[in-house]
Amino acid sequence: MDLHILDHRLRVISISKNGLVNFTHPLIKLIFLRNRTRCKFFSLTETPENYTVVLDEEGFKELQPSEHLKVESSIWLPLNVASNGNASSSSQAVGVTKIAKSVIAPLAQQHVSVFMLSTYQTDFILVKEKDLSVVISTLEEEFNIYKEVGGESVPMHCQDVPNGLQKNGKEALHPVVIPKNQFCVMSLDPDTLPSIATTLIDVLFYSNSPKEDAANQGLDCIKFFSFSLIDGYISLVMDTEAQRQFPADLLFTSSSGELWRMVRIGGQPLGFDECGIVAQISQPLADSDISAYYISTFSFDHALVSPASHRPRRGHSERNRHAPAPEERSSSQLISDVPSELDDPRLSLQLQWPMVARQQEERLTLCLD
Amino acid sequence: MDLHILDHRLRVISISKNGLVNFTHPLIKLIFLRNRTRCKFFSLTETPENYTVVLDEEGFKELQPSEHLKVESSIWLPLNVASNGNASSSSQAVGVTKIAKSVIAPLAQQHVSVFMLSTYQTDFILVKEKDLSVVISTLEEEFNIYKEVGGESVPMHCQDVPNGLQKNGKEALHPVVIPKNQFCVMSLDPDTLPSIATTLIDVLFYSNSPKEDAANQGLDCIKFFSFSLIDGYISLVMDTEAQRQFPADLLFTSSSGELWRMVRIGGQPLGFDECGIVAQISQPLADSDISAYYISTFSFDHALVSPASHRPRRGHSERNRHAPAPEERSSSQLISDVPSELDDPRLSLQLQWPMVARQQEERLTLCLD
Repeated sequence: MDLHILDHRLRVISISKNGLVNFTHPLIKLIFLRNRTRCKFFSLTETPENYTVVLDEEGFKELQPSEHLKVESSIWLPLNVASNGNASSSSQAVGVTKIAKSVIAPLAQQHVSVFMLSTYQTDFILVKEKDLSVVISTLEEEFNIYKEVGGESVPMHCQDVPNGLQKNGKEALHPVVIPKNQFCVMSLDPDTLPSIATTLIDVLFYSNSPKEDAANQGLDCIKFFSFSLIDGYISLVMDTEAQRQFPADLLFTSSSGELWRMVRIGGQPLGFDECGIVAQISQPLADSDISAYYISTFSFDHALVSPASHRPRRGHSERNRHAPAPEERSSSQLISDVPSELDDPRLSLQLQWPMVARQQEERLTLCLD
Repeated sequence: MDLHILDHRLRVISISKNGLVNFTHPLIKLIFLRNRTRCKFFSLTETPENYTVVLDEEGFKELQPSEHLKVESSIWLPLNVASNGNASSSSQAVGVTKIAKSVIAPLAQQHVSVFMLSTYQTDFILVKEKDLSVVISTLEEEFNIYKEVGGESVPMHCQDVPNGLQKNGKEALHPVVIPKNQFCVMSLDPDTLPSIATTLIDVLFYSNSPKEDAANQGLDCIKFFSFSLIDGYISLVMDTEAQRQFPADLLFTSSSGELWRMVRIGGQPLGFDECGIVAQISQPLADSDISAYYISTFSFDHALVSPASHRPRRGHSERNRHAPAPEERSSSQLISDVPSELDDPRLSLQLQWPMVARQQEERLTLCLD
């Protein structure tokens, strides 16, 4: 398989809940006005604590320093596993599950800290630039590694990068929480982004009133909304409550129209030095071949787990950022057509969820609600 | 005829060019998210000097005090002449021209300062709350005057308001400038506002780069863009350059699809106490029955004059805020269909414009470019 080191140098920042107002102008520019910015990698995720923004250096320039902004000090590089048809695994599961044994586990063993960003299209594994030599030496046995430079893919080997071996923090056990709300992972034709602009602006910038938050918390639900626009591809992760605000005919999801349950990892903010957190979650999921998305934020990590196992996303085809299949995408089922077997999601949750939960329990302190 | 004192208490403010970034959050809310605000009267106009915002007290609450915000100290009340079919004038011209002799001139004679806000739908005459008794005593001979209170129209007479006779500043002569760009006055079904959201956001909040401004000034054009959302009706005034950025099938203008030339009044900022400025402009236009819009801003006044005289807006029907005619509106011609007689606007300008200019010259120092 091929592993690509993408041509983006990323920053990971957080914006405080109260401070978002001050960043409305640059964020709306980065989300909606592609002609006015050279930013190619942008992700904004709201969690109960704050807003996490992952963006390249062009985008980072747009944000003025402020007391409301925290910037993680590292430069992060996004890695991406490109399936070239020679996948060794016979697994039908996708997402972080697919790369759990080939990428996540080896990096954890070498004490490399990763920041995961799953999207509708693919899964980005962000590693610190200073860890790159360790990453390459760890993964070059399993992968052909390429560095993308100005649109070209240049083969990389361990000796190509200065040795930066540096021990990251040791792995620890973290409590998890499983909120009650269910999530969908969706995409959108970038040309139709203007059609949902006011709704998206409303949800991102104006839905943070104490009243609405209280309503959420009362139901043991979590506030979680993620938007990303990466190399022209849009991905949205939201719960079914937020989804109802969007027109059903524009957002599309996988052909099976799945809903996902969230496992939120961490009691205290996880920081950026600890390794093995993603591995703790993805390993047992991979053992059972259960698909999962994984989204790291500034404070905590979030796995989105398919309540019905063995159900691959987007039919049986793998998402592939490097070879998008527009005809397949356009024929994908609309989110409004949730398949009948999921009409009563409690049913499949009862059937499948305990299995996932049991596996987590073996290695984690499980805080089931 | 009936004159209505509308149920809005308005503030007139300016936001500095550099300060707009800090007000993006509340302004986008006021423009696009009607469900999140109780503001019913909102107008935002960009001029080369600043942004002028006219809004009611509910909207005013949304704007945090700032060094970039200047607030005119008065409360302003919007007056509106409702045509009830008994119009005494046989004039076909509309806009400020229609009310020049019945409203504008008498108020100027009584030294009442007015702030004009023409929209696609109607013309609002804003007067200071403290001048209300003078306004009523001045106009009650010509009009049946009603005050709108909670949706009811209550007849008003001079003795109903405390006497606030107070001399405003004396009228003076002001230089005018006639920029080269041409303007259109348009409307939009409020339900389709989301469809132009990203374009409108781009034009209002991101088109203020020094480069774009320089390009404008090099052509002796003026930066002028006005958006208003008043009691659910949208009005847009923009030049033909800005208009090209909007989809042609959503914005509509009058059936004659007119383009307008601007007369910008004032060399120094006009302030808010002087009276007679609107009268100076509207009187000669009324004498020649030439339609005109009139938009006051924080620093200067702007008349939009039809280069072809005697051409009423919206066919021969009068715009009437109190009795909108949706069927007429929906059948109105799209802005993309500019009538052939205006295909070479220079032609009609040559024919008609000097007449307007000559009339201005009699009373004003005319700064033709």
